[in-house]
Amino acid sequence: MVQLIDDERLDYLVADESLQIIQSPTAFSFSLDAVLLSYFAYVPIKKGAILDLCSGNGAIPLLLSRRTKATITGVEIQERIYDMAERSIELNRLTEQIKMIHGDLKEMQPHLGQSKFDVVTCNPPYFKTPSKTEYNQNEYLTIARHEVYCTLDDVVKACKLHVRPGGKVAMVHRPGRLVDILTTFRAYNLEPKRMQLVYPKKGKEANMLLVEGIRDGKADLTILPPLYIYNEDGTYTEKAKEIIYG
Amino acid sequence: MVQLIDDERLDYLVADESLQIIQSPTAFSFSLDAVLLSYFAYVPIKKGAILDLCSGNGAIPLLLSRRTKATITGVEIQERIYDMAERSIELNRLTEQIKMIHGDLKEMQPHLGQSKFDVVTCNPPYFKTPSKTEYNQNEYLTIARHEVYCTLDDVVKACKLHVRPGGKVAMVHRPGRLVDILTTFRAYNLEPKRMQLVYPKKGKEANMLLVEGIRDGKADLTILPPLYIYNEDGTYTEKAKEIIYG
Repeated sequence: MVQLIDDERLDYLVADESLQIIQSPTAFSFSLDAVLLSYFAYVPIKKGAILDLCSGNGAIPLLLSRRTKATITGVEIQERIYDMAERSIELNRLTEQIKMIHGDLKEMQPHLGQSKFDVVTCNPPYFKTPSKTEYNQNEYLTIARHEVYCTLDDVVKACKLHVRPGGKVAMVHRPGRLVDILTTFRAYNLEPKRMQLVYPKKGKEANMLLVEGIRDGKADLTILPPLYIYNEDGTYTEKAKEIIYG
Repeated sequence: MVQLIDDERLDYLVADESLQIIQSPTAFSFSLDAVLLSYFAYVPIKKGAILDLCSGNGAIPLLLSRRTKATITGVEIQERIYDMAERSIELNRLTEQIKMIHGDLKEMQPHLGQSKFDVVTCNPPYFKTPSKTEYNQNEYLTIARHEVYCTLDDVVKACKLHVRPGGKVAMVHRPGRLVDILTTFRAYNLEPKRMQLVYPKKGKEANMLLVEGIRDGKADLTILPPLYIYNEDGTYTEKAKEIIYG
C-alpha cells in the first residue's frame, strides 16, 4: 500500500503494468523525455552503478531498473518530489536496487565520492532563469523546468565528477541548446560520442535531443537515425510504441 | 568553346542542362556535398556579395548563380583546379557574376578586405592530416579531402574574417566532426543557428551535416527535418531529386 498526498495519483510507467509511479499535476509528472532517455542511455546489464541526477519523481531510475541489475542512485533537490520518488520505489519493491538522495547535485561529493559511477543520466531543467511570474505560478514545476538551482554547467560538472574514466553520461535536452551542451560536455572531457534527434513527426523540426558522452573519450560523434514520435494521423509510430510500452 | 586538358570531361551540373562544369577523375569532381550546401545555404536574391572558400572546380559558385544575382567570389588553393573553375565560369558565360581567386584562404585579407561578404559558404577538407601513402597516391584529391593546407580552425577563422556582422556562414561537413564544428563556430562568434542532418537512407546513421552560423548571432539552434538521399530501392527520394535536378 502507498499513501497518496494532495492531488497525487498512481500511474503506470509502462503498459504491462509492471511498474507504477506516483505523479502530481501540481508537483511533478514525468514526461516522454524521461522515457526516451531511459531507452537511449547505455546501461550495464548485470552489475555496476548508475547515477541519475535531477531525478524528479524517480521515473528514470524506475524505468532503468527494467534493463539492468546495476544499483541506481537518484538525486533530487525538491523534498516534496524526492518523497514521491521514495514512495514509488517502495511501492515497486525496488529499495534494494534504487536509492534516492534528497539534496543538491552540486554538493554530492561527501555522499557519493568521485568517479564512482559507470553511467550518469540526467534530464535537467531545459530553460534559463524564469521570469518572476513563472516562478510565482508554480514553484515545483518552475524549479524542475528552469535553471533555478542548477545551470547546464553545474549539471555537466557534476556528471564529470561522478562518472568514472571511460564511463558514460547520457542527457536529454532541447535542440536549441545543442551548442551549449556539446561545448560544455567537451569542456569537462565528456566527449560526445552518440546523438539522436527526436522529431514530433515527419517534416517537423527536432524538438528533443539525446546525447551521450564518454569521459576522456576520443572525438568522433555518431548521429543515429532520427526518431519520430507520431505518425501523420497523430498515433504513435511503431518505434515510439516500442520505447514507451517496452 | 572550352579547352579540356588531360582526362577532363564536361558534365551537366543540373538536369536541365543549363550549367556545365569541367570535371576530372584525377584532379577534382564535385560531389553531392556541394549540391546539398548550395541548396541549404541562405542567399540574398537580388544583390549582395557571396564568398565561397575551398571552391574546387567552382561547383558551388555555379550552382548558387541559379539562385541569386549577388556577386560570387571563389577561392581555391590548387592552381590546376582553380583553372578548371575559371574555364567553367567562362563556358557558362558567368564571368560577370563569378570571380575566382587562386590563393590560400588564410591570406585573403589583402585581396578581399574584412567583413565584406553577406554570406560565406565552404565545403572544406573533411579529414585530418593524411598518411604518406594517401598523399603520394593522388596529391590533388588528398589536398581537397584532408587538412593539408588548412585546418577546420583556419577555415572558420577565414569565414569570420570575411563575413559581415549579422552575415551568414554555411558549411557542409561530416557528423563525426560536429562537436569540432559547433565549438569552433562559437569560438569565432559565428553562432550556429540552423542545422540539417543528411541520412543516406532510412534507418542509417547520418553521413553529412549542413550548418549555418550567424556572425554575432544569439544562441538558439534550429534543427531542420532530416534529409534522406535514397529510397529503400536505391532510387533518389523526391526531396533529393528536387535538390539535385532543381
